Amino acid sequence: MNPQTLNVALAMGPGVASRIFSARHLESLPPGLRLLDSEPMEEFASPRSLGLLAETDILITGWNCATVNTAVLDSAPRLRHILHAGGTVKNHVDSACWTRGIQVSTAADANAIPVAEYTLAMILLANKRVLQVARTLHRTQAAVEPDGLFPDMGNYGKRVGIIGASKIGRHVIRLLKPFELEVVVADPFLTEADAQALGVASIELEELMETSDVVSLHAPSLPSTLNLVNAGLIARLRNGSTFINTARGELVDQDALLARLERGELFAVLDVTTPWVLPADSGYYTNPNVLLTPHLAGSLGTELKRLAATAVAEAQRVSQGEPLRFPVQAADLAFTA
Amino acid sequence: MNPQTLNVALAMGPGVASRIFSARHLESLPPGLRLLDSEPMEEFASPRSLGLLAETDILITGWNCATVNTAVLDSAPRLRHILHAGGTVKNHVDSACWTRGIQVSTAADANAIPVAEYTLAMILLANKRVLQVARTLHRTQAAVEPDGLFPDMGNYGKRVGIIGASKIGRHVIRLLKPFELEVVVADPFLTEADAQALGVASIELEELMETSDVVSLHAPSLPSTLNLVNAGLIARLRNGSTFINTARGELVDQDALLARLERGELFAVLDVTTPWVLPADSGYYTNPNVLLTPHLAGSLGTELKRLAATAVAEAQRVSQGEPLRFPVQAADLAFTA
Ligand SMILES: NC(=O)c1ccc[n+]([C@@H]2O[C@H](COP(=O)([O-])OP(=O)(O)OC[C@H]3O[C@@H](n4cnc5c(N)ncnc54)[C@H](O)[C@@H]3O)[C@@H](O)[C@H]2O)c1
Ligand SMILES: NC(=O)c1ccc[n+]([C@@H]2O[C@H](COP(=O)([O-])OP(=O)(O)OC[C@H]3O[C@@H](n4cnc5c(N)ncnc54)[C@H](O)[C@@H]3O)[C@@H](O)[C@H]2O)c1
Repeated sequence: MNPQTLNVALAMGPGVASRIFSARHLESLPPGLRLLDSEPMEEFASPRSLGLLAETDILITGWNCATVNTAVLDSAPRLRHILHAGGTVKNHVDSACWTRGIQVSTAADANAIPVAEYTLAMILLANKRVLQVARTLHRTQAAVEPDGLFPDMGNYGKRVGIIGASKIGRHVIRLLKPFELEVVVADPFLTEADAQALGVASIELEELMETSDVVSLHAPSLPSTLNLVNAGLIARLRNGSTFINTARGELVDQDALLARLERGELFAVLDVTTPWVLPADSGYYTNPNVLLTPHLAGSLGTELKRLAATAVAEAQRVSQGEPLRFPVQAADLAFTA
Repeated sequence: MNPQTLNVALAMGPGVASRIFSARHLESLPPGLRLLDSEPMEEFASPRSLGLLAETDILITGWNCATVNTAVLDSAPRLRHILHAGGTVKNHVDSACWTRGIQVSTAADANAIPVAEYTLAMILLANKRVLQVARTLHRTQAAVEPDGLFPDMGNYGKRVGIIGASKIGRHVIRLLKPFELEVVVADPFLTEADAQALGVASIELEELMETSDVVSLHAPSLPSTLNLVNAGLIARLRNGSTFINTARGELVDQDALLARLERGELFAVLDVTTPWVLPADSGYYTNPNVLLTPHLAGSLGTELKRLAATAVAEAQRVSQGEPLRFPVQAADLAFTA
């Protein structure tokens, strides 16, 4: 065996591997990498898992991976890298990994792409009132005059407010560049220099809520962000504005939001809610100003292949002695998703 | 009076001026331009119109402008430029204008912007099946697994087919650059060099229909394009693909399209149909795979201001002796919208 070849093993929940890997990925890892077993470990305690861990240099992980704790690390003396083919590593990378100096990488940047794309599409449709007008046309089955219904419709001269210059928030800002829309951001961690580099104005959250035609939430879920968009802030949203949430339901006062939606004052596009599946009698299902999607903005279908491709590319960098492209540090976890 | 100041008059249908001009535009035209009357001419025969025409150097026109024919030109000896704050000039610029060497400009490029934006949003939503999944969630009011319904969903590794490298088609191609989607084009007028400059592969229409996940129509309505997307081509569309029409209904065999939609084989997004308002019993209104909008993709609401701004900027170029940015030649009309 080539002494420079690194052994790769997979660890993730049942059914995940077939969704994220193309056959091509697993049949031919780049040179310098050897896949120990194309069957992922679903736990780290069985004889098979212990046999694999003993040989593993690089662990590629996916959704629902079992926790990599002290006991697992003790069984994996060669392990130096955990490369996650998913977003957050908080659910499976135990503090022991950081203590041991395991290098960790995430595909959260790749996972940010489809969320930003969903958001972009929804911003463009919201400013133009496309879905509201379409609904009226399908219902009335007769002539509809769009700007009779919504005189201020249009993607020109509108303000888009981004809450959180996170990975997703920044990608939304990049994607909004070709459009004649003004973009403002609220993020206590964003420096003035960063805002300038992004080409956006950094403003206070209160002003963002009061002045934006569309507000899109991209902050992570942290103790400090629970109920970030509280009733007082929701009250500041302009009549006729649209609130988009692809982040997490617990960041928003959903009752205050629904109350304004039920008064016909706002529009909302919600990919996430608390609880994840709203009760069947929730007013969100039936309000004509609400578009609900079941947590689909992130990577799904063909987009899952991008997550595996990201982790495999990271493994290739490791085998070639290059630095990781998307490293995660323990200290990041306090303010990231 | 400054001898270099050019007199500007307005001509358009009732109610158009207040929709396309901001007060700012009319109160202060750029230096070198003088607005003869902020009230547009709705016809060219009244004493007031004849008085204005006698003085007019530049005519800014809008939707439903009366025809500028030989009689009008005879009343307007100083007229050298017709600057249209709208798309096609075919409805009001009579052949006499070309014969007299009147220079004509169009805001069709500005009008292409919102249509391309609508199309981009619809492409991103179509690949991800967003509206189909949302519909299911609102109907069932219970947990929905998106990729259980649509395993191949996602904006990664999909092919988008653009019919017509028109002004709108080209802007769609530009807007699609940031996404990991393959873009192909079918257009008999597109040279290989142009396709390369656009960064797209130029292919035959048959192959485009057979291989694209989303097909978007952007050809102009001409005698040569009537029924361009005929039943034979519609039969070639892949099961599960999406057909978007923001061009004109008469370019498409709508019955053949509806038949495949009713078999659940396709999805469609139609901003235009023939007739413009479909009969109340049309199957298009009720098919769950169809999103209809009432010709709203073009400039509406705030976007109308962009049309007037384009015409005013052209007038400014004229007053400064610069060439028009969006000139129209008589010969263009045979293959443009
Ligand atoms: N809908 C989906 O399918 C989906 C998919 C992926 C992620 N998400 C969610 O999207 C959100 C953003 O994810 P990400 O990976 O871009 O996040 P991230 O980890 O990149 O976010 C970290 C950044 O958020 C900003 N931030 C922190 N606290 C803030 C505050 N109080 N106000 C404003 N900004 C603050 C800071 O700039 C910080 O650097 C998260 O809530 C995540 O759970 C949803
Ligand atoms: N939905 C709306 O609100 C809206 C608004 C504006 C325009 N439109 C429609 O959008 C379409 C495109 O408008 P535009 O201004 O971009 O057009 P355009 O005038 O720029 O189109 C001309 C180009 O179309 C291409 N073309 C000509 N014949 C073709 C054929 N047989 N097959 C493929 N391509 C062909 C050629 O490249 C030609 O240069 C038109 O049908 C127009 O009526 C709709």
